[in-house]
Amino acid sequence: MSVARRFIKQELPLHLVRRHLEPGPVVLLTSAQGTSRNVMTLGWQTVMEFSPSLVGCMISAGNHSFELIRQSGSCVINVPPANLIDTVVGIGNTSGADIDKFETYSLTTEPGVKVPAPSIAECFASFECRLSDDRLVESHNFFVFEIVHATVARLARMPRTLHYTGDGVFMISGRRIDKSALFNPHML
Amino acid sequence: MSVARRFIKQELPLHLVRRHLEPGPVVLLTSAQGTSRNVMTLGWQTVMEFSPSLVGCMISAGNHSFELIRQSGSCVINVPPANLIDTVVGIGNTSGADIDKFETYSLTTEPGVKVPAPSIAECFASFECRLSDDRLVESHNFFVFEIVHATVARLARMPRTLHYTGDGVFMISGRRIDKSALFNPHML
Repeated sequence: MSVARRFIKQELPLHLVRRHLEPGPVVLLTSAQGTSRNVMTLGWQTVMEFSPSLVGCMISAGNHSFELIRQSGSCVINVPPANLIDTVVGIGNTSGADIDKFETYSLTTEPGVKVPAPSIAECFASFECRLSDDRLVESHNFFVFEIVHATVARLARMPRTLHYTGDGVFMISGRRIDKSALFNPHML
Repeated sequence: MSVARRFIKQELPLHLVRRHLEPGPVVLLTSAQGTSRNVMTLGWQTVMEFSPSLVGCMISAGNHSFELIRQSGSCVINVPPANLIDTVVGIGNTSGADIDKFETYSLTTEPGVKVPAPSIAECFASFECRLSDDRLVESHNFFVFEIVHATVARLARMPRTLHYTGDGVFMISGRRIDKSALFNPHML
């Protein structure tokens, strides 16, 4: 596998995280607890609040990451560029119980600033999360996280993102269209 | 405003709803209670389970729709094609407390099969929802719905969808790429 681009990221105000998560991209979730760490592919997440910056994630209990996230009460949401698609699929089709996925997929880790889980340098945005509400974890595997530290690559144009439709088929994000002129100023 | 295309939809097995919601499109949420009805724009939702078919929606309590949905315990999630963008923005920047948005935006309603809220004929997919879990409504305005009836237009190619990034800017869904050959069969 060829070496993927590593991004240099800068801090992003937390209420702006929605810019990157609201369109619905597939993300790579990293976790760490003690000497264990892992990374998983996730498509089931939603923004829940601007400030505090909340995001809800449905993380199946069958995932090796589930206990790492529950026990550490934290994770990092990393947004991969679309050209990382084969890595994203590979991570989603293997288990951290069998292999070290960071090594297998040549991912460069950077230490978390506020959480034990690492960020991924090959992803252009990384959002460090602390568990905020676990009331739906037991019944629905649904975690409400507060994003406590956010970094994004400073680029003139963000990379395209991956959006999963099921059946092994992804949608690649397309062009942008600015409709701000039609908005009430307080809705922007 | 020009007349938008109306779609003829057919029933979709409920576990396949993820195909349309997981990529993260902006949706139009319809609701009805007694003689009141409304439609709102929503970008904060996630798939939560295949079967039962669960979806989680963060619906701000400031919306006129909030009480209609809470009291009726139901709504319909409609997926608009990208060319409905000006209607989507208009619906998101007005309140059902002031106007009948269905009339203002020339939307054709069809009666719900299993819920009181109508479907929108100008949307290519409509998913009827019943409230399944309200434990996060009081604290987070987060509703877990079970989709109880699903219809989608039978088309060779689905229309492009809208994905909101904030600041009045939308991303239009782009090309599809099939990576199913890289998947473990049981992951498809």
